[in-house]
Amino acid sequence: MKKAIGPKNSLYPLPVVLVGALVNGTPNYAPIAHVGILDFGSVSLGMGKIHFTNAGIKENKTFSLNFPSVDLVKQTDYCGLVSGMHVDKSRLFEAFFGSLDTAPMIRECPMTMECRLVRTIDFPKHDIFVGEVVQTYCDEEVLTDGEVDYAKIRPILFTMSGHGYWKLGERFATAWEVGKELK
Amino acid sequence: MKKAIGPKNSLYPLPVVLVGALVNGTPNYAPIAHVGILDFGSVSLGMGKIHFTNAGIKENKTFSLNFPSVDLVKQTDYCGLVSGMHVDKSRLFEAFFGSLDTAPMIRECPMTMECRLVRTIDFPKHDIFVGEVVQTYCDEEVLTDGEVDYAKIRPILFTMSGHGYWKLGERFATAWEVGKELK
Repeated sequence: MKKAIGPKNSLYPLPVVLVGALVNGTPNYAPIAHVGILDFGSVSLGMGKIHFTNAGIKENKTFSLNFPSVDLVKQTDYCGLVSGMHVDKSRLFEAFFGSLDTAPMIRECPMTMECRLVRTIDFPKHDIFVGEVVQTYCDEEVLTDGEVDYAKIRPILFTMSGHGYWKLGERFATAWEVGKELK
Repeated sequence: MKKAIGPKNSLYPLPVVLVGALVNGTPNYAPIAHVGILDFGSVSLGMGKIHFTNAGIKENKTFSLNFPSVDLVKQTDYCGLVSGMHVDKSRLFEAFFGSLDTAPMIRECPMTMECRLVRTIDFPKHDIFVGEVVQTYCDEEVLTDGEVDYAKIRPILFTMSGHGYWKLGERFATAWEVGKELK
């Protein structure tokens, strides 16, 4: 028997990324889990308009997505507890830049993506930023045969219910493969 | 030292959902991991235009998101191996309907969301469907104190690299809490 629990947006878990942007010339970082893939080259970020970071994204038309490992959970969570309006978060991490020049990336994160803002969709209380992935950077240690290995990245996953941070579990099957026996 | 691996969209893992829609009056299901949250009430689906399901979503302006547990991985993957144009996937699951009438949901999935199509964004090879969550249905067994418990749902997570299906790992920290000690 199904129970109707109301219109709960339950599309979780989603990976936590630290969104990086230059705000007034200084790197700022906001942890965001309201993210998604739109097509093979595009990502979306749903960011409440109260976020300090939004102005920097709109000004520079660039941003970064930084994937913290579970080891960085305290720093990641802290970035969501304080606003860049009051706290200089650039001191928390060592920044590096790619070809876009204005998308600060976090050296301590094992994987980062440099993005160009290609569209902003206006929602009542949120800016939906659509980014084109321009370059992806990884630590050598998280690659296996040249491919990103998420077991090595150890991403932080988020669920709104219970405000949970979760680890990634085991890889247990292969897509476009495990279903073949039902053909 | 960071290694640039090209513009790889690496925003994974993302949860696999079976997108349900009526196509020519028959329930059809497509496994999609290019999903995201836009704001508290809205989700996005990035679906290649070749998908048979897209026509049904456009016609009825409704769809469902069904969250299969790891036990349903073979059926879920199979839905991605065959097209509804050739195979009647309505036989795979028992469908139920909510107030929207035209968004078939899968009884075997421990959680489902019924969505109203509120916007379609045209990308070169993809339709980006934006849905408003109208109702969420759960098996009683996956609730803990009335809230969705993802440890009980046991969702299937997907990474493009290695075409991996992954389990959710352990909950290890609380958001808006674990970072307080850095304040």
